[in-house]
Amino acid sequence: MALYYPDDGALDALRERDPNHPVVRCKGFIFDVDGVLCRGEDPIPRAPEAIERLRRGGKRVVFLSNNSTKSRQDYLAKFQRLGIPVIEDDLVLATYATAQYVARERPRAKVYMVGAPGLRRELELAGLELVEDPFAAEYVVVGSAFDGTGRIREDNAHRITGALRALYHAGAKFIATNPDKIFPAKDGVIPGTGAVIGALSYMLDRGPDAIIGKPSTHIVEIALARLGLPAGECAFVGDMDTDMLAGKRMGMTTVFVRSGAMTEEKLRSLGIEPDYVFDSVIEMLKAEG
Amino acid sequence: MALYYPDDGALDALRERDPNHPVVRCKGFIFDVDGVLCRGEDPIPRAPEAIERLRRGGKRVVFLSNNSTKSRQDYLAKFQRLGIPVIEDDLVLATYATAQYVARERPRAKVYMVGAPGLRRELELAGLELVEDPFAAEYVVVGSAFDGTGRIREDNAHRITGALRALYHAGAKFIATNPDKIFPAKDGVIPGTGAVIGALSYMLDRGPDAIIGKPSTHIVEIALARLGLPAGECAFVGDMDTDMLAGKRMGMTTVFVRSGAMTEEKLRSLGIEPDYVFDSVIEMLKAEG
Repeated sequence: MALYYPDDGALDALRERDPNHPVVRCKGFIFDVDGVLCRGEDPIPRAPEAIERLRRGGKRVVFLSNNSTKSRQDYLAKFQRLGIPVIEDDLVLATYATAQYVARERPRAKVYMVGAPGLRRELELAGLELVEDPFAAEYVVVGSAFDGTGRIREDNAHRITGALRALYHAGAKFIATNPDKIFPAKDGVIPGTGAVIGALSYMLDRGPDAIIGKPSTHIVEIALARLGLPAGECAFVGDMDTDMLAGKRMGMTTVFVRSGAMTEEKLRSLGIEPDYVFDSVIEMLKAEG
Repeated sequence: MALYYPDDGALDALRERDPNHPVVRCKGFIFDVDGVLCRGEDPIPRAPEAIERLRRGGKRVVFLSNNSTKSRQDYLAKFQRLGIPVIEDDLVLATYATAQYVARERPRAKVYMVGAPGLRRELELAGLELVEDPFAAEYVVVGSAFDGTGRIREDNAHRITGALRALYHAGAKFIATNPDKIFPAKDGVIPGTGAVIGALSYMLDRGPDAIIGKPSTHIVEIALARLGLPAGECAFVGDMDTDMLAGKRMGMTTVFVRSGAMTEEKLRSLGIEPDYVFDSVIEMLKAEG
């Protein structure tokens, strides 16, 4: 019978096998969500058990996603469906991280936004002032302007132009939640935040002042602040090149799992060498056979 | 009293002054519209007279615009307001030129379009088959998806995604009417076709296979075909760097007029030397004083 962290003997076996093994050495874990804990709506087998075991062993965990349309409140239901107990403070979404980034740089800044209600919600919770007049904006914050079917959200039909005017006429700072280009969906791919970044960047001949989501380190810094631990004591567990890049840039231990969208071969062909590779998160906790 | 082409003596005076003067040497003229014949809705003084004089002197003229939203039929009323008699064949708009370009490359091609009714009209007139299913598309043709107030056109809300799918899944060719980024409007700038080009290019990591409007030569080739004259016997009259670039690339005589949006100093600071410079189109026809 296989033995899993932190049960009697498992930790010793892991330490003996490798004193640098992530569950031996790291005190905190940042988990990517899609491809690590679930695939779309389907849970990854035994992922909830792995999280529960890490917590039982005294590890701190947070969950990180480049999602640009949902608030942390919106995400609670998703984790309930996955069977992983969380509170809002355990969730570091690109919406939340972007709001934190702007609020740290300029508290109560006037923000013109492009995106979904979940982004608006997090900007408001961070104490930022949402403005509808582009000429009054100090910041432009852009997330995805598209709904799940690929239509521009009705309430965003004028917002590409509004953002353009805030940047062109009012000299606002240009912040994007995440750089993701496209996502798979039922009837074909749909645009990510990249569509809005691309439209504005082409028109203005310049890119965003900051992109918060992976592979940028901004979102990871905010996740580490939530963990309350230095990067060197934490591991980033993910299924994509962007996860590994963001973790490496911060000096974290990087753990690649094969349960997601990217193969290990593809990852290595991009020149990225993770510190550890497992089939799935529960395998990271396995002490034998 | 000043003498103007082609009145008695004017042609001789112009020939004597410069045997290469455009109205001496050139048989055909391509006129940019905004900044040359009008400024927005306001006519440039004596521009209709200049066109009438050129025609009276046996010159062929066509009018060229990067407009990506209007059909030639739509444009007839604009020229009527300007007091310049035209038929559709005298007008080479980016909508029309794009339709011609695609129809020459692949007659009756299946086209998925992003843009305004004027673009649709010209695509249909060129015998192309407009399709609503992105997976059936052989070509994606994009113009501006925005109306005059800067809102995404209601009937275009799903079309960025449709174009993305046609390009990503169906391998359609990617054609843009024009590269213009932004335009001035009453309440601030509004997006040009560049917003759509930028969104798709960022998502797909590649630009259009062809952009038809200035400074590309595709639209000029179609205008020269309408004139029925070789480039070396024709002049391009415009107020912008893109006009001069397109004309030079084709080996045409280039005539810059100071009646538009760009100063001569700005033009020269971009390293562009036009063959001739006049205050306005009527000045090109002036033989003395």
